[in-house]
Amino acid sequence: MAAGETKETIWHGGDLATAKALFPQAPKPWIDLSTGINPIPYPLPELPLSLWQRLPGTAEEAMLLAAAREAYRARPESGVVAAPGTQILIELLPRLVPAANVAVLGPTYGEHAPAWRKVGAEVREIADFAEVGDANVVVLVNPNNPDGRIVACETLVELAGALAARGGLLVVDEAFADFAPEMSLLPTLPEGALVLRSFGKAYGLAGLRLGFAIGEPRLTDALHTMLGPWAVAGPALHVGAVALRDAAWLSTTAEARAADAGRLDALLAPLGRVVGGAVLYRLLEMSRAASLFERLGRAGVYVRRFQHDPSRLRFGLPGDEAAWARLADALASA
Amino acid sequence: MAAGETKETIWHGGDLATAKALFPQAPKPWIDLSTGINPIPYPLPELPLSLWQRLPGTAEEAMLLAAAREAYRARPESGVVAAPGTQILIELLPRLVPAANVAVLGPTYGEHAPAWRKVGAEVREIADFAEVGDANVVVLVNPNNPDGRIVACETLVELAGALAARGGLLVVDEAFADFAPEMSLLPTLPEGALVLRSFGKAYGLAGLRLGFAIGEPRLTDALHTMLGPWAVAGPALHVGAVALRDAAWLSTTAEARAADAGRLDALLAPLGRVVGGAVLYRLLEMSRAASLFERLGRAGVYVRRFQHDPSRLRFGLPGDEAAWARLADALASA
Repeated sequence: MAAGETKETIWHGGDLATAKALFPQAPKPWIDLSTGINPIPYPLPELPLSLWQRLPGTAEEAMLLAAAREAYRARPESGVVAAPGTQILIELLPRLVPAANVAVLGPTYGEHAPAWRKVGAEVREIADFAEVGDANVVVLVNPNNPDGRIVACETLVELAGALAARGGLLVVDEAFADFAPEMSLLPTLPEGALVLRSFGKAYGLAGLRLGFAIGEPRLTDALHTMLGPWAVAGPALHVGAVALRDAAWLSTTAEARAADAGRLDALLAPLGRVVGGAVLYRLLEMSRAASLFERLGRAGVYVRRFQHDPSRLRFGLPGDEAAWARLADALASA
Repeated sequence: MAAGETKETIWHGGDLATAKALFPQAPKPWIDLSTGINPIPYPLPELPLSLWQRLPGTAEEAMLLAAAREAYRARPESGVVAAPGTQILIELLPRLVPAANVAVLGPTYGEHAPAWRKVGAEVREIADFAEVGDANVVVLVNPNNPDGRIVACETLVELAGALAARGGLLVVDEAFADFAPEMSLLPTLPEGALVLRSFGKAYGLAGLRLGFAIGEPRLTDALHTMLGPWAVAGPALHVGAVALRDAAWLSTTAEARAADAGRLDALLAPLGRVVGGAVLYRLLEMSRAASLFERLGRAGVYVRRFQHDPSRLRFGLPGDEAAWARLADALASA
């Protein structure tokens, strides 16, 4: 079995091939609620053929970075680097911080800890910052995935300062911060902190592959050097620049998705306890989560289960009334 | 100045911002002959919105890899990894081969040597394999860019064997091999050799960002691990899979572009000596190359000059009759 053909061992949402294999008899089309991706995407702007034909130019890249700086309210002295998705930044970052002792605030997105382990770092999952100990790298997702826990900026500023004092780094993955901009660390980004931002989730265009790292230019420059020129596709540069300048779409969408999240909570409430989540996903705790996962799967509704916590399921937002109806039916028969 | 906003110091073709800055008065539109990208791209298939919305799935990735295996005639035992462009593979590969002593057969594409230097490798440019010496990594572009030099497979098999015997690696960048498939090393890929293939050049879709590394699964697996999941965008997975299965388009296009190359040679012949090239670019040697570069630039025709060889210019192929006419006019007035 060759590279790229190997089985993923970390569970993720979004790969319908897994759902199809688990529930081959399920009615079509699949309702995929297994991700935290906005189901109603930013409307694609027209994409001139030249975006596909030409190597992405430095001018286009500069326009995207300027739009990202403004949308994310980055400090002028912060460096910004764009990548084909945040995931590759998660993979490459550990190669910049040698022999790290890493604490990941968890449970959280499954890819952070392995990326550090791959380069030989010692990685602990901690439940609270009181357990940071002598870690020189601390990673958190804020708001957290899947439970939506938010750590306040003041706490992060203090932690980043402590880490910076010993040459360490605080990594804040703000993949789900677009609809809660007031909690972003970026406008007050302290020394010793690096923030990751994902484009695809809030804008509903995860297949585009676009993400950013924002922090000390020393680090963002080094990431840019590792990626090399032209890492982001021409269409992604353009769509990103257009969408990130569209503040009106973002605020309208934030309201609409928050209303959807409330509607989802109401559907889930009779089945268990909604213990958290962000605007784009809700986390349900219930004693018979495994059996609900099965029942939903057989009804063609794919939700996110967790390898290490069989009592929880994460639900993304349905994207249209047909999907809402099928979800409601499947839950009602559960 | 932040990451990604820094000035590129290696000269490349394809960035029209440079041409515009050098020749602000040039007539529009620019005729960009500064790259070796097919000016008549593969017709984009329809791209369902789901390709943009969803995380690229393992099934889509597997389809692309299968198409690449067949199109490139890879050996069944070779590993194949897809990346968002070959460039990022060039950047990451040196991080897999520690403390390398590298020989790059040159002059050639400007990004190979710096990628190895970035990780502290000792890099020499060699003019001939007789100078390989104790290098444990040898890099060549085949056919070479910009002069089109082709090294025979038997020579490469022998060299790969010698390198493999001392734990080394032969890197063969076949970015321009699509129109000369008979010379590819892939069908007989020996131990100790890794081949890079670019999608964007022959298929005229450089902005899509798609490239491959093919070789020992140990290496392609490691590259896949460094890239992480979802490195290639959904639209790129789909376009690549469709285009690489379209052998008829490739052979028709190879003939048409070869005819274009002959037409270009005829235009260039009065000005100097066409000393080489591949189907998608021709290399002109002449005593007054710098002045021709200026004259073409002022006429809105952008060609590729070389930092270390002021006697040569590289010409890509014009894409339509208007471009041919403007090139012919600009050359005639030179």
